[in-house]
Amino acid sequence: MTRQNTVNLLPAEIIKKKRNGFVLDRAEIRLMVDGFVDATVPEYQMSAWLMAIFFKGMTDEETAILTEVMLHSGKTLDFSHLKSLAVDKHSTGGVGDKTSMILAPIAAAAGVHIPMIAGRGLGHTGGTLDKLEALRGFRIDLSLEELVKQVSTLGYAIVGQTKEICPADKKIYALRDVTATVESLPLICASIMSKKLAEGIGGLVLDVKYGSGAFMKTLPEAEQLADKLMAIGTAHGKRVSALLTFMGQPLGRFIGNALELGECFAILKGDSYLGRNDFADCRELSLELAGQMIWLSGLAKDAEEGLKKATTALESGRAWEMFERLCNAQGGNPNELPLATTKIDVLAPGDGFLSGYDTERIGVAALSLGAGRSKATDEVDHTAGIEIHRKLADPVKKGERLFTLYASGPKLTPESPLFKNATGMLLSATTISLQKPHVPALLTKRKVN
Amino acid sequence: MTRQNTVNLLPAEIIKKKRNGFVLDRAEIRLMVDGFVDATVPEYQMSAWLMAIFFKGMTDEETAILTEVMLHSGKTLDFSHLKSLAVDKHSTGGVGDKTSMILAPIAAAAGVHIPMIAGRGLGHTGGTLDKLEALRGFRIDLSLEELVKQVSTLGYAIVGQTKEICPADKKIYALRDVTATVESLPLICASIMSKKLAEGIGGLVLDVKYGSGAFMKTLPEAEQLADKLMAIGTAHGKRVSALLTFMGQPLGRFIGNALELGECFAILKGDSYLGRNDFADCRELSLELAGQMIWLSGLAKDAEEGLKKATTALESGRAWEMFERLCNAQGGNPNELPLATTKIDVLAPGDGFLSGYDTERIGVAALSLGAGRSKATDEVDHTAGIEIHRKLADPVKKGERLFTLYASGPKLTPESPLFKNATGMLLSATTISLQKPHVPALLTKRKVN
Repeated sequence: MTRQNTVNLLPAEIIKKKRNGFVLDRAEIRLMVDGFVDATVPEYQMSAWLMAIFFKGMTDEETAILTEVMLHSGKTLDFSHLKSLAVDKHSTGGVGDKTSMILAPIAAAAGVHIPMIAGRGLGHTGGTLDKLEALRGFRIDLSLEELVKQVSTLGYAIVGQTKEICPADKKIYALRDVTATVESLPLICASIMSKKLAEGIGGLVLDVKYGSGAFMKTLPEAEQLADKLMAIGTAHGKRVSALLTFMGQPLGRFIGNALELGECFAILKGDSYLGRNDFADCRELSLELAGQMIWLSGLAKDAEEGLKKATTALESGRAWEMFERLCNAQGGNPNELPLATTKIDVLAPGDGFLSGYDTERIGVAALSLGAGRSKATDEVDHTAGIEIHRKLADPVKKGERLFTLYASGPKLTPESPLFKNATGMLLSATTISLQKPHVPALLTKRKVN
Repeated sequence: MTRQNTVNLLPAEIIKKKRNGFVLDRAEIRLMVDGFVDATVPEYQMSAWLMAIFFKGMTDEETAILTEVMLHSGKTLDFSHLKSLAVDKHSTGGVGDKTSMILAPIAAAAGVHIPMIAGRGLGHTGGTLDKLEALRGFRIDLSLEELVKQVSTLGYAIVGQTKEICPADKKIYALRDVTATVESLPLICASIMSKKLAEGIGGLVLDVKYGSGAFMKTLPEAEQLADKLMAIGTAHGKRVSALLTFMGQPLGRFIGNALELGECFAILKGDSYLGRNDFADCRELSLELAGQMIWLSGLAKDAEEGLKKATTALESGRAWEMFERLCNAQGGNPNELPLATTKIDVLAPGDGFLSGYDTERIGVAALSLGAGRSKATDEVDHTAGIEIHRKLADPVKKGERLFTLYASGPKLTPESPLFKNATGMLLSATTISLQKPHVPALLTKRKVN
């Protein structure tokens, strides 16, 4: 992209400069964002600017500046008084992605400070907040003061967005949502990173997913996103690492809020849930991410030592103890998970190998059972979800269970249209073939800044 | 551009469809425009849509539909009761372009009905309304009823925009102006054609200008614009022709509102103005355009016969008489043109040939003298302007007059910064060289649908 020497002070000129493909200056980006927040730049100019960014992109430097300006639109936390760097994880979103509730207590048990501000489900993906709310009585609405205090004393907290953090992001995202400007890499990156940097962290591990259940369907796209996110972190002086992970099938065995919590607790306790304990992929990825966090915080000399410490924290029971202490602090009883009133099995229509999942479609099927929202006002059924009996490359025999579907409702029966509909979606999302497929490694690539 | 089968009913989906490069359906275009006019589609969605159109364009069919929807946002006139087709001319804008005030009385004297709704100056170009207002007492604010009546009785009228004609265009243009979405070919074409078609005309001649004083700097760009405008007219069942004309130097000898009127009156009367009568280029183009109008209205069998009838109407004095009758109907005395209080000459700095004009810059110099507005609230000095002593390829001797500058003001002297500033602009806009340049023919190309 080319540079222009002039710095424009009129929004229309700034829109035109980006429209014509020039690099914007710090003052210009600040004028648009700050002006939009204080309503001196009207929504119609902001949306035209966002569309121009959609088409013309932003350099890494522009994106870092946009992030910084959004970050400083609200309050930021400060953990510089702690002995180790505060650290967090961000996942770009997947199906059955429940690692936050596992890695946070593991890393906290290893001494890492984690001020985790988590999000809700977006599109076909689940959200940490929705999952934690399946635990009746768990408070996600801590004040910023409570959050800072709990991180300083207990070591970690998992809370929801507050209005004080990145108000610019909230306002810009709402506008992007209705102006077809969501799918812009620099805007996505600035949105993610401004919220994470506002947590006052010194390190961040990114779980950047690719495949049929991720927003980025291919590894090169995911790498591009990872590079862009890492560049912003680097520009802000943070330690950042990224794991590129395969999301071509649901992570673990369960999708749905209470079901996923059950899987997390089983992994943390070394126990089973609904009769199964085959959560190797989810356990492995959680440990890897926790290991990265321990290393980034400065509590391990490298990622390998971090992983060792994470494994010890998990296997010693200290991670589970740490989760129980989270419940003591924020409410909720982990032994009182709600269970669905009704379930049905979806059986394999033929023999072969499980060779492909349209994982996004599986996420949408879970949504349709009540596990998430199609629109903001939808009610979530915390017990609803899907159990995955076959992973990619597993052999399948006709009549064997592929999925178990869970949902609750006073009039719900196994014959309800809710189940019929989800069954159809799941069968059309599943490919069984005679040849055993090649499946990429879950942890495909590591990147460090 | 590709087609999609789905028709979207949500503005955000329609924006996304255009953003992704698909052809919009009639219902989608109507939803955006009608919704914007009645405020069910908010400005921020409209501006994002306009920016997506800026980047992805519109097919001729989409542009014709957009035009139609904008046209029907307000009242339209009807002249189907007349024996010949009502006809108008549209110029894409130039410097010293004063043909409307010449061709309208010529064509009207030949029997053509002309419901001319004219515009104001835009950027560096002048506007017919501003020029007519130099005639004290001339009323441009006829009601639509008065306009229709005068066209039916006198044969023609020249009036300003009313709120009842194309309110969508007015509202969309105001938004484009502040969101850097003015320079979009389909949006420009729909804006021009919706207003012209609302006049109830059956034929339209387009004066599409190219060169240093036009919006389109090159002939290919101007042809593209002409084709697009003609395609809309054709799609609406109108007779349309286009003249591609060279705007690499000011048209005629004067720029500025009263000065240009003086030139028009001299041409219409076969007289001189401020001592000169060398207006061949302006006279020729006016006759050509008037000839096209006579032909398009059905009053001549071809353009050639139209040109003959135009020439007769001018040379017989009937065109001038027709202008006097316009003043009788709309007010103003053509013998009372205001004159500037102060003038200065700009002299040639060297010998050679006049080989190049930055005509846009000459237009801006006239603006700076007070002949037009830099912003909507500026006051116009009707006497201000520029006299052009040398046309392209004319020999120039050092010390000869290149320009005479005119302006009025109680404290104005030839030494005022106003003149100094304009002199600098004009000298930097003028190239004198040793070789005689090649100058394109004023009337470069004719196009007929």
